[in-house]
Amino acid sequence: MRGTGVGEFDLIARYFTRPVRRAALGVGDDCALLAPRPGMQIAVSSDMLVEGRHFLATVPPERLGHKALAVNLSDLAACGAEPLAFTLAISMPRVDAAFLGPLADGLWQLADAHGIELVGGDTTAGPLNLCITVFGEVPAGQALLRSGAGVGDDVWVSGTLGDARLALEVFRGRVALSADDFERVRLAMERPQPRVALGRALRGVASSAIDLSDGLVGDLGHVLRRSGVGAVVDVDALPCSEILRDQGTELRHECLLAGGDDYELLFTAPAGARSAVAAAAALAGVPVTRCGHIEAGSSLSIVDGAGRPLDARWRAFDHFA
Amino acid sequence: MRGTGVGEFDLIARYFTRPVRRAALGVGDDCALLAPRPGMQIAVSSDMLVEGRHFLATVPPERLGHKALAVNLSDLAACGAEPLAFTLAISMPRVDAAFLGPLADGLWQLADAHGIELVGGDTTAGPLNLCITVFGEVPAGQALLRSGAGVGDDVWVSGTLGDARLALEVFRGRVALSADDFERVRLAMERPQPRVALGRALRGVASSAIDLSDGLVGDLGHVLRRSGVGAVVDVDALPCSEILRDQGTELRHECLLAGGDDYELLFTAPAGARSAVAAAAALAGVPVTRCGHIEAGSSLSIVDGAGRPLDARWRAFDHFA
Repeated sequence: MRGTGVGEFDLIARYFTRPVRRAALGVGDDCALLAPRPGMQIAVSSDMLVEGRHFLATVPPERLGHKALAVNLSDLAACGAEPLAFTLAISMPRVDAAFLGPLADGLWQLADAHGIELVGGDTTAGPLNLCITVFGEVPAGQALLRSGAGVGDDVWVSGTLGDARLALEVFRGRVALSADDFERVRLAMERPQPRVALGRALRGVASSAIDLSDGLVGDLGHVLRRSGVGAVVDVDALPCSEILRDQGTELRHECLLAGGDDYELLFTAPAGARSAVAAAAALAGVPVTRCGHIEAGSSLSIVDGAGRPLDARWRAFDHFA
Repeated sequence: MRGTGVGEFDLIARYFTRPVRRAALGVGDDCALLAPRPGMQIAVSSDMLVEGRHFLATVPPERLGHKALAVNLSDLAACGAEPLAFTLAISMPRVDAAFLGPLADGLWQLADAHGIELVGGDTTAGPLNLCITVFGEVPAGQALLRSGAGVGDDVWVSGTLGDARLALEVFRGRVALSADDFERVRLAMERPQPRVALGRALRGVASSAIDLSDGLVGDLGHVLRRSGVGAVVDVDALPCSEILRDQGTELRHECLLAGGDDYELLFTAPAGARSAVAAAAALAGVPVTRCGHIEAGSSLSIVDGAGRPLDARWRAFDHFA
């Protein structure tokens, strides 16, 4: 890690240095040191958040700190890994305590809730950019992968989908909501709750898993490609808030199927494992909903509650589109 | 890790996906999986490179790819860790094959030279920014730290110092060099060679180590603070190229003491270990030079070859200064 000059060191010390308990060495040397337990693999994921692309300039810094870590924890959740540690690299135009203080607060609050430690990183001047890399621990051979979906498996999702996208449409001026409803969907966008406990509980139960970051159609597509299977999903079975339920059909479908930023888990499990799935969900305290099944082939069909295929084509959000 | 839409996936697949040999799982799932060997700790470091701050717009993309990984490998070298894997997160204004192709070439060339695997990452649209996180393996308890310097130890540096800063001064128009000399110092700036083999060979020999990224005075200061000691360094003993030796005294001192971007190792070792240091350097094929010693106290004195203290105050480069 780089640390360069007194100003930057003060900054790191003030907001981002805490003693580590589980890591062998934390912030302050060239490297941090993790000490994996015997038989454990280290799960690693890295996400970069850019203003205007992953968050709006209007986001309160505390929520941005929360979200930057949450989207990474969501990747660990999808693998069934237990969070251990993370690094944080920030580029920002200037050192601004009014921004950094609440950013750090939001980050630490979520980190503490998951017992995850900041072990290193980097700070530099430049356009606002946050890059977090997370480390988790998972028993060798037990990680949930995208590649395990089998023909006949159920398709499940956790929580509710689409509210984050609905909030984005309010910001874009396409939708108007009451102040209360807007605040509720805005929380879904700005303070997603990574499903870490659910992912862990699904080890040995789910056959595949992915976190929903880009929208159900795109993310399920990754599972299908990796697993070499197809699927049918019932859009009317997808769980959504009452606020989204009250919107028009087209907007609702768009938010549910191609919303993005949900950070719920999408997973598959054999039909014989339904009670085990229910037990895992109860243990984690997260509702789960069965919304489709895996078929032979390679296509993804979206149908309504009556089994009729939807006309519209839903594609995943492409950062370069 | 996030992967979002077809364009981005094509990009990742084309330039940044290769089968892994040592990691348990590479690019393509929510997380990568590392399988540490028993008794090993995982060394982690994360560096973010921003245009105009860590590299100039004039840098050839191949050299930028090299440097982005090199500065991270240099952190592993300073810990005596063996490189295992890395993640790469890139933000860039647009997908540009003329940029990405050579960037990837430079990155892979250095990665292959060190047997390190790309296991994951992120790509997004935004201002150019590269964030690499590296993972290395080091036997538990054997990592080189900043905190181990002892009174009476020698202070050593590897290679030569100051050429990268000299090149920067050419770009800034402060210094003029012949085309040949400019190309040589520019290579020091744009293609630093991380001292991985030397760091590994110094395990059990050096009492402390750090990589020189911000200039000798600033980086040695970190070692002194962490170790609770002071030091005397002889500026005339610091190794430099003939090109830098031909410059005026003030510029030479500035480049040697506060140059930055050297990516050489600065380390301490007991005076009784001089032959062991020489053996480690010979094993690694990297020249090392003794340039000072550790004293009691907390001050860093820079003296010339006759033992006279230098007048000027040298401070480390501060990214926010």
